[in-house]
Amino acid sequence: MIYLTINYPKGSLNRTFSTSKKKQKKPVTFANRGMSFEAEINQTNQYYLDKGIAVIHKKPTPIQIVSVDYPKRSAAVIKEAYFKEASTTDYNGVYKGKYIDFEAKQTKNKTSFPLSNFHEHQIIHMKNCLKQDGITFVLIYFSATERYFLVSSSVIIEFWDNQLTDGRKSIPLSVIEKEGHEIKAGFVPRIPYLNILDQHFIEGDYFNGE
Amino acid sequence: MIYLTINYPKGSLNRTFSTSKKKQKKPVTFANRGMSFEAEINQTNQYYLDKGIAVIHKKPTPIQIVSVDYPKRSAAVIKEAYFKEASTTDYNGVYKGKYIDFEAKQTKNKTSFPLSNFHEHQIIHMKNCLKQDGITFVLIYFSATERYFLVSSSVIIEFWDNQLTDGRKSIPLSVIEKEGHEIKAGFVPRIPYLNILDQHFIEGDYFNGE
Repeated sequence: MIYLTINYPKGSLNRTFSTSKKKQKKPVTFANRGMSFEAEINQTNQYYLDKGIAVIHKKPTPIQIVSVDYPKRSAAVIKEAYFKEASTTDYNGVYKGKYIDFEAKQTKNKTSFPLSNFHEHQIIHMKNCLKQDGITFVLIYFSATERYFLVSSSVIIEFWDNQLTDGRKSIPLSVIEKEGHEIKAGFVPRIPYLNILDQHFIEGDYFNGE
Repeated sequence: MIYLTINYPKGSLNRTFSTSKKKQKKPVTFANRGMSFEAEINQTNQYYLDKGIAVIHKKPTPIQIVSVDYPKRSAAVIKEAYFKEASTTDYNGVYKGKYIDFEAKQTKNKTSFPLSNFHEHQIIHMKNCLKQDGITFVLIYFSATERYFLVSSSVIIEFWDNQLTDGRKSIPLSVIEKEGHEIKAGFVPRIPYLNILDQHFIEGDYFNGE
């Protein structure tokens, strides 16, 4: 029995896993190895930053602060605060001069992606960014099947706006497979989504759905 | 004596001020009327957002959460948390497809702008954004003289990097007047900084210092 310890970048989880073939049914892959989806994206962004490829950060969680203590000789302590709903998407930054803006969502569903993953103001934010020619998309992780997709916000917006009339509360996987772009997960960077942008959003004209 | 009450947008301060000439030495202006510099920028960004001109937001303050209570039937309460140092600048977004990134700083100094207003990681972030062709600058408010300037990050970076060798810990006002761009404060939007970008950063080639 051999144990490997891999030190993942800051913000991710370390995990020791076994390469023993007795206990494993699948061959060793880098998929589903204990990193959360958010940590995978953070690792990817850190890689892009370290390599000078792009500057993309997750925004801090918005907090409503109610009470703060200022003890002498030590740091201010927030004693009462509440989580606020974000008014934008979680990630943004710059790549080749372009404004990049995205949200990351995970689902256990196998055949569709529920629109309930979004809030109205996130959709509005995506629409606003699209109007300014920002590159706006959603990274979707289907955890049951371990598949990653980059889906243009224009697809999300279309389904969102239509749900009131057609009653459809989710985007079928078949649509995501056709209109989105599957991302082959790697090791470092874990989720190389900029490759998709290079192929379909920056050089081409896919982005505006034209 | 006449009192005017102006309702400023969300996030700013309301202020009642007198137009009595007896108590006032200066004529009535919209300058220095009780709005904080941050509120002025937020009002400006809200205007740009509402008018569909640009999508630029202040990032939430980064917080390190230590303890959270989850009372039954009510919202989670953060019981212990600390302020973290931001790893980026405060404002970013998109304008005409371009990535916009800036920091806002205020000084009481009259003749120079102290470099101590910045942290090392903010400078690094500016450098990273410049490498990606982002439009990166600082809005500086000289509160004593009520003057606003937009200064390209390349100027800030130059002085920052030189301070170790030349020992100069601030940027002289004369440099800011020459290398930066004064913004004429208005009512709504209060600090129309996008005009400067149109004139010098987006159409022209000032941005890269060429």
